[in-house]
Formats: sequence, structure tokens, C-alpha cells
Amino acid sequence: MSKLGVATLKNPNLDTMKSDFLYHIDINIPDTRDTSDIQQRFGDVKFVCMGGTKKRMLDLAKYLRGLLEPENKTEEFIDISAAGNRYAIFKVGPVLCCSHGVGMSTMSVVLHELLKLVYYAKCQDPIFIRLGTSGGIGVEPGTVVITKDAYNGYLKNEHEIAILGQRIVRPANFDPTLAQELLECSKGSFDYNVVLGNTMGAECFYEGQGRLDGSSCHYTENDKMAFIQQCYDKGIRNIEMEATMFSSLTKHVGVKAADICVTLINRFEGDQIKITKKQKHDFEQRPFNIVGAYIQKVLAQRK
Amino acid sequence: MSKLGVATLKNPNLDTMKSDFLYHIDINIPDTRDTSDIQQRFGDVKFVCMGGTKKRMLDLAKYLRGLLEPENKTEEFIDISAAGNRYAIFKVGPVLCCSHGVGMSTMSVVLHELLKLVYYAKCQDPIFIRLGTSGGIGVEPGTVVITKDAYNGYLKNEHEIAILGQRIVRPANFDPTLAQELLECSKGSFDYNVVLGNTMGAECFYEGQGRLDGSSCHYTENDKMAFIQQCYDKGIRNIEMEATMFSSLTKHVGVKAADICVTLINRFEGDQIKITKKQKHDFEQRPFNIVGAYIQKVLAQRK
Repeated sequence: MSKLGVATLKNPNLDTMKSDFLYHIDINIPDTRDTSDIQQRFGDVKFVCMGGTKKRMLDLAKYLRGLLEPENKTEEFIDISAAGNRYAIFKVGPVLCCSHGVGMSTMSVVLHELLKLVYYAKCQDPIFIRLGTSGGIGVEPGTVVITKDAYNGYLKNEHEIAILGQRIVRPANFDPTLAQELLECSKGSFDYNVVLGNTMGAECFYEGQGRLDGSSCHYTENDKMAFIQQCYDKGIRNIEMEATMFSSLTKHVGVKAADICVTLINRFEGDQIKITKKQKHDFEQRPFNIVGAYIQKVLAQRK
Repeated sequence: MSKLGVATLKNPNLDTMKSDFLYHIDINIPDTRDTSDIQQRFGDVKFVCMGGTKKRMLDLAKYLRGLLEPENKTEEFIDISAAGNRYAIFKVGPVLCCSHGVGMSTMSVVLHELLKLVYYAKCQDPIFIRLGTSGGIGVEPGTVVITKDAYNGYLKNEHEIAILGQRIVRPANFDPTLAQELLECSKGSFDYNVVLGNTMGAECFYEGQGRLDGSSCHYTENDKMAFIQQCYDKGIRNIEMEATMFSSLTKHVGVKAADICVTLINRFEGDQIKITKKQKHDFEQRPFNIVGAYIQKVLAQRK
């Protein structure tokens, strides 16, 4: 088994490959037996933060720089993966801020490559955190949900993936200690609701989340409401599109991870997102605040 | 059933919604009973071309402008969906060029919204074409594959989607006439291989495509090769990450669609993409050439 900090990746082939090209993030590992260049560039990484859009990840990088390097006001941010044309990666001291796009499939591509990056860079116990937006279930818009367990579209706490034609089912749980630590960091300081709840990771924004307003819909509003209630009864407090893949792959390879999303809507009350751009921007800062506080706390403890 | 040109969308709710906000592409329909503004902006759209990256779609828009509006050399391209921060849309006369990101989930979001856009704009018989990159199966890198039938990761010619907790299985076929017409447009003019074949739409770039170089891999090279051979035996000539969702949703709502992808690698010979950026750029032009010739032919026939 390959060593990742004190954790392990689950691919023995990586130990016998001569070189590796992390194609979608455009990072080349010319010699896997001597990764000193990659270690120098990325070996200090302790936190890998991920979110849907490049813009939000640049905002996060700027926010974290304000907290971690307040003296650094002029340096331009460089998108490390710009040449790949698919994902953006910004580095702020021990933090990478990486965009992953919308949904499991696009996130899985960059997640595999980031896991290999921290492995080759010999990062010590890196922590992966997704900061996202989501639809709420029975919580007021603007509530931040820190995920406990991830549920798939069949309302099962697991992730299905087709590998070599077989249906492989993996458990989809986030690290409970990390979720609790993030929750602790939200207490007292902020004037919005933060809850620990389960999250549904859907494959589709419309039919896959029971919305009535897609290009296709064969069910009634009553059917939808019964489904949203079923979600609520399972402790699901928000729906996004990454949680089961993210939790299952990180758990499988042995890396700590968390998912922290703000809700933009309460799905008991509608399907369309009607908040203003200003409100959306304000809501998006909430996971930033909590993750920022958490990172500061961890770094202070290490000093 | 809602009318889409002469085709139909499969959502009766759209006829009773007062307004609609195509959230991810940031297009507002303030009054669904009077969409004259949207008709004016998009009513002439006949072709909706889609591809993974914003850069490639801008390249495609420039290429198509050279073919369709050769006199127009100065006008800047405007990304219609820039404010949504997720997808890019460029318009060249009757063609939209739209980015969809990597994989089914991200593409399904924008596809639902584009289908609603052409519906509200009352476009006549719009044709959706994906122009992508892919991994080849038993064909030389650079070969263009026009998809006949799409196969999922379980090697079935269908698409599974979780809707309201149920497993819904839909057929995943592209329009055979359109595929044949695209093939005809490739004949004679171009010096590369173009084949009609089946395409596997995988949920994952690494384990989901039997690669040996992901952050996780529990199978051997022999297992992988047996799987690639199984794909070949089913007539699969390339693997990408969108085909089953794309074919099944367009077929389900009654819109003609095609998938035309160049291969960057032959998976019988390896997993890592090793072509140069220049070669990749050249390969990416190949679907552009064929789709450009097809669009020119259709527009000439209408005159």
C-alpha cells in the first residue's frame, strides 16, 4: 500500500509507475521515485479546500490569505492548473483552494488527482474540505450544514460506482471528529444557523432532486413533497451533488474529509432559487468563515 | 405536453409556471406566457453545440464564425452565461456553443436548462451535438468516433438515474439518421479516421474507466485488459463521461442529438494521456471540421 502522510492511498500500482501526469490539473511528475520538486512546491499542504466554481475558490483564497498572511496584500494569485483548462487551483500557505465543477463525476476526476498530488508531495495527514452551496430540507435558507453521513439518490448511506462492469458499493461517511471540530468552530462567533446533518448527494439537479421544473418531470408535486419529507425523516438537511462520491473515496483511501455547505433555498417551499446575487454572495461566505476559523485554530495548535 | 419546435419537452409543469429562472446559465424568463424577448434573442437557434471546456467552446465559436459569417472579423464574443460563473455560452448566428464541464452530472444541469431555453425561445427542431475528447478502444489516437449507442459502466445500452428514490432506467441511443449524416459529412474531405461506433459513458475517469493509475485501484492489469476487450466486443470504440445521460435525456424529451468525440489515446496501449498540447489541439479540431461541414450543409439546404 502506498503511504500518504501517515495515511495510505489504495493503489499499489503507484509504487511501480515511473512517471505520472495529473492530466486534468496539468501537473507532471516526471520521476515518481524522486518527487523532491513536487515536495518543495506542495509538501507543506495541510488543507485541500474544494468548491464548485473557480470564482468562489479565488474568493476563498483571498479570504484565507487575509486570515493567514495578512501582511501579503499585493501578490497576484496564480491558477496552478490554468493550462489544463478544466480546474483552478490556488495556494495560500498550507491551503490549496481547488474548483471541482458541478457534481460527482467532475469532482471525482480532480479529487483522484489531488489525492495523488498530496501523496507524491508527501503531505502529512492532509484534510480535504468541500465548501459548497446546496438546497435545504426543512432549514431556513442561509443555514450552514456540516455533513454527518452522505445519502445517495436511493436514500441509502452509500455510494455506487461501476468498476470493470461491476456495481461496487462503498460506505459514504465523513470523519465524525472533523465534522464536530468544524461545528465547534462555528459556535458563538457567527449570527447564522449551523447544523450537523445528513446530506443527499444527487446525480442531477432537476429530476434527481425531485424538482418540478426540469425539462422532464413525470411525478406530481405531492410525490415530490413526500420524497422531501422522506429525506427529512432520514436526517437529511440538504441536497447537493458531490457528497457520496467525496465521502466514499476519501474514506476508502484513508484521508479525512468534511463537507460544509450553505443552503440557498428550503425545498419544502419551492424549487427555484430566488435569492439575490448579493444574498448568495453573503451566504457563500459562511462556510468560508467556519473553515477559516478551523484552519487558524489547527495552525495555532501546531505552533 | 409542452411543445418544443415540433418536438416536445416532457414536463407539463412548464405550462403552468409563471416565471422561470435558468439558474446555472443565468437566463431569466420573467413571464413564461410572453417569451418574446427570449424568442428574439434565441429563436433562430438551430444547433446547440456542447463541449467540456469554455476555451474549447470559444475556439469552436470562432471556427464556426469563420465558416458562417466570414465577413465578421472584429466583433468580440460575449459569454452569455458569464454571470452564472459555471458555464459559458457563445452564440454564432443559429448556433450556440456551450461548455458543460466534465461528466454526466454537470452536463445534465446545463442540458436541462438549454432544453428549456430552446423551448421558451420556440426554436424549430433544434439539434444538440456534443463535441468531445475521449479514450479510444482499439482505434488509433486521433480517430473521431460518432456515437451510435451509448453504454453505461455496467456495459448496458441504457442510463440509470435515481428519481424520488427509485431507479429509473432509460434507453441511451442517439439519433441514427443524424449520426449517419455526420459520418457522410466527414467523407472525402479530411485525412483522419472517422468511425461510427458505440461509446461508453463512465461516471469516473479512473476506476470507472478501468484505469490503473487512480488514487484507488483494486484490480490487476489483466482484469483491466479483459474489460477493455469486453468493451471492444460490444462495438465500443471510445469512453467518455457524458454519453448515456446525454442520449437518454435528449431521446426522452424528443430532441435529436449526436455525440462526436476524438480519441486521445488507445486504452489497449495505456492509461496516461501522452500526446503533446499541440497534438491535442489539432485533434480537437477534427470534430469541429465535421460538425462545421454538417451545419453548412443543413443551412445551405434551407436556403
